Amino acid sequence: MADEVFLLDFWPSPYGMRVRIALALKGIKCESKEEDLWDKRHLLLKMNPAHKKIPVLIHNGKPISESLIIVQYIDEVWKEKSHLLPSDPYQRAQAMFWADFVDKKASSSINGSGRKVYMTKGEEQETAKKEFIECLKLMEGELGDKPYFGGENLGFVDVSLIPFYCRFYAYETCGSFSIEAECPTLVAWAKRCMEKESVSNSLPDQHKVYDYILQLKKKLGIE
Amino acid sequence: MADEVFLLDFWPSPYGMRVRIALALKGIKCESKEEDLWDKRHLLLKMNPAHKKIPVLIHNGKPISESLIIVQYIDEVWKEKSHLLPSDPYQRAQAMFWADFVDKKASSSINGSGRKVYMTKGEEQETAKKEFIECLKLMEGELGDKPYFGGENLGFVDVSLIPFYCRFYAYETCGSFSIEAECPTLVAWAKRCMEKESVSNSLPDQHKVYDYILQLKKKLGIE
Repeated sequence: MADEVFLLDFWPSPYGMRVRIALALKGIKCESKEEDLWDKRHLLLKMNPAHKKIPVLIHNGKPISESLIIVQYIDEVWKEKSHLLPSDPYQRAQAMFWADFVDKKASSSINGSGRKVYMTKGEEQETAKKEFIECLKLMEGELGDKPYFGGENLGFVDVSLIPFYCRFYAYETCGSFSIEAECPTLVAWAKRCMEKESVSNSLPDQHKVYDYILQLKKKLGIE
Repeated sequence: MADEVFLLDFWPSPYGMRVRIALALKGIKCESKEEDLWDKRHLLLKMNPAHKKIPVLIHNGKPISESLIIVQYIDEVWKEKSHLLPSDPYQRAQAMFWADFVDKKASSSINGSGRKVYMTKGEEQETAKKEFIECLKLMEGELGDKPYFGGENLGFVDVSLIPFYCRFYAYETCGSFSIEAECPTLVAWAKRCMEKESVSNSLPDQHKVYDYILQLKKKLGIE
């Protein structure tokens, strides 16, 4: 029986993008369903009742939730092509650490400094910008002089971080600053990633993302 | 060369306890160093500069941070005894999901409802209690009629959740409610875990933890 791979997704979600990239790198065909997150559907509630969040990967009828767990699952199930996590336990732990760091510190989740860069103003925004740049600089330190976090090829940390690149325009426009001026090595890495079709085809246009964020702020009553 | 295993720890930390239990289950001897988290030491700052948090496991001089990542690392390096994560990718993903759920929803981290049960009062506390019980009930659902989350033996989810049992007395006393009345299956599971020396020797006394929490609240100016 051929694998049935189905993704509950939402186009501006960087977490959904992680899964899209991992599937593309592995060459897995996948049917996708856009969830309107303001009107949570029956399928999402049934497939991820604990968090009620996308992305959810449904593989042969069985749901897997949380983007980093999904990417690891994809890497373990389809292991012939594009290894994302190293086989050495220490290197695996390091890759997991930095992917987790993206989620805990830099990403646009509730406490992430990234989200605050476009959701806040004044002093709070300045603090968020500083924290956000500090996080990106730590990531630059981890990248070092490798072309990718995964070494010569895209790995787990690359897949975890690159989706946020399509928000860089929104961060910069809302925050009136240049990420490239602060973190040129990281922006060069992002551009290198974008040369890969598996990445560029999985990320929406940065201006479309910016418009979405403006709409979101309006919807939430934030000016 | 024999393995050198060193743990930067702090006795009331449930995250540190996870590592202690995993090491005990695997029969690994480990030297431990208590970090005073109000006076972060040079070693912690050097070993975990990104988060500056315990626990940090130092294995043959190399640091690994974040408790769930450490437990997975221990499971991968010392694989002969007490398998914590299942080998099947789907079951692994499910175990990771529920361990992650403990961290994101129920645990005592900044946004966790557990912490709010003893750190807040009035309406906020009532909401936290409700959320906390809901989380525990979801965990009960996942446990089902198995003796442990890992099946017949302790697994990854058991190791992730059981440390919070030593806070149950504090939750109940500060929140004036009975967890056992709400979630008898989960409390029976916790007592079953506590019959294992690897668990009971890794957890501090619940009254000592309660005293620590009272001191912490005083230090933070919360009455």
